[in-house]
Amino acid sequence: MLMLNIGDGKGKTTASVGQIIRFLGHGFKVCFIQLFKDNDYYGEQNILLGLENLDFFSFVKKHPCYLYNVNSERLANLCSSAMDKLRELTCINSKKYDLIVLDEFNVALRDKLINEDEFVALIKKLSQKSDIVVTGRGATKVLIDIADLVTEMKEVKHPYKNGVQARKGIEY
Amino acid sequence: MLMLNIGDGKGKTTASVGQIIRFLGHGFKVCFIQLFKDNDYYGEQNILLGLENLDFFSFVKKHPCYLYNVNSERLANLCSSAMDKLRELTCINSKKYDLIVLDEFNVALRDKLINEDEFVALIKKLSQKSDIVVTGRGATKVLIDIADLVTEMKEVKHPYKNGVQARKGIEY
Repeated sequence: MLMLNIGDGKGKTTASVGQIIRFLGHGFKVCFIQLFKDNDYYGEQNILLGLENLDFFSFVKKHPCYLYNVNSERLANLCSSAMDKLRELTCINSKKYDLIVLDEFNVALRDKLINEDEFVALIKKLSQKSDIVVTGRGATKVLIDIADLVTEMKEVKHPYKNGVQARKGIEY
Repeated sequence: MLMLNIGDGKGKTTASVGQIIRFLGHGFKVCFIQLFKDNDYYGEQNILLGLENLDFFSFVKKHPCYLYNVNSERLANLCSSAMDKLRELTCINSKKYDLIVLDEFNVALRDKLINEDEFVALIKKLSQKSDIVVTGRGATKVLIDIADLVTEMKEVKHPYKNGVQARKGIEY
């Protein structure tokens, strides 16, 4: 099954982390691949790395909006290592993972940092054996069309609008 | 800060579990109080119970829709133990928890199984020291009004509509 956590609201990544915890709690195996996130910044990584049955991979450790001095060709190049990992996963014949979470890959798709056609082909292949969650703003129409379950995290009220800053535990 | 995860879509509880993991990853202390959920059913409980700095409490271990032979007075009575726990938390002078998650309490509020005025008073007091997350469908207007951050998990696409059944790891 292909699931998407999309939208401008809070909860896309945290819901995918909760899903990981739910899978692990049943003894299932999980692969968590993150894009654009510093390893030492997000609290969840400290806990997840200590859990059994979870493989964690992280590529391009800064969000594109902080990489304004890096041109998109170079950014796409950085993202190619994440695509290599996906290609590698499709080559495994046995079912290695029950759940594969691709955090922030929607952003890479939206910004054309990864090739949508190839990504869709890889996802279709992977979802034959594993459940897949893709998170991030900017899910493309094609991805929404092929997804089985799509949830929009919709911002109803957010304190950022009143000038509140991102806070440890809350946003990272 | 008071945060609400509301709406008919998937991800309200999993996002709160992800938030718990994020807080714990920074060494913060968390209290997780669930309503209406069997202890042996939800995968996340198996992982959460093994983590340090997390206190877990569970009340009324079935969802009201499976308790159709229990009248609402009896149900409200069952929920009163959860309210006792909240009252107890407000009596602690020191800051015991950085985050308190009240899972499915919106359902209890919607169905008038807990008193809204008292719940709001308790939450206001608790949120002076701790961040609070309340999840569940049917958040009341009063709660939305006093919340700082409200996210609606909106169902864009869901396989239930095509007859797919709830599945281990995905929904529980």
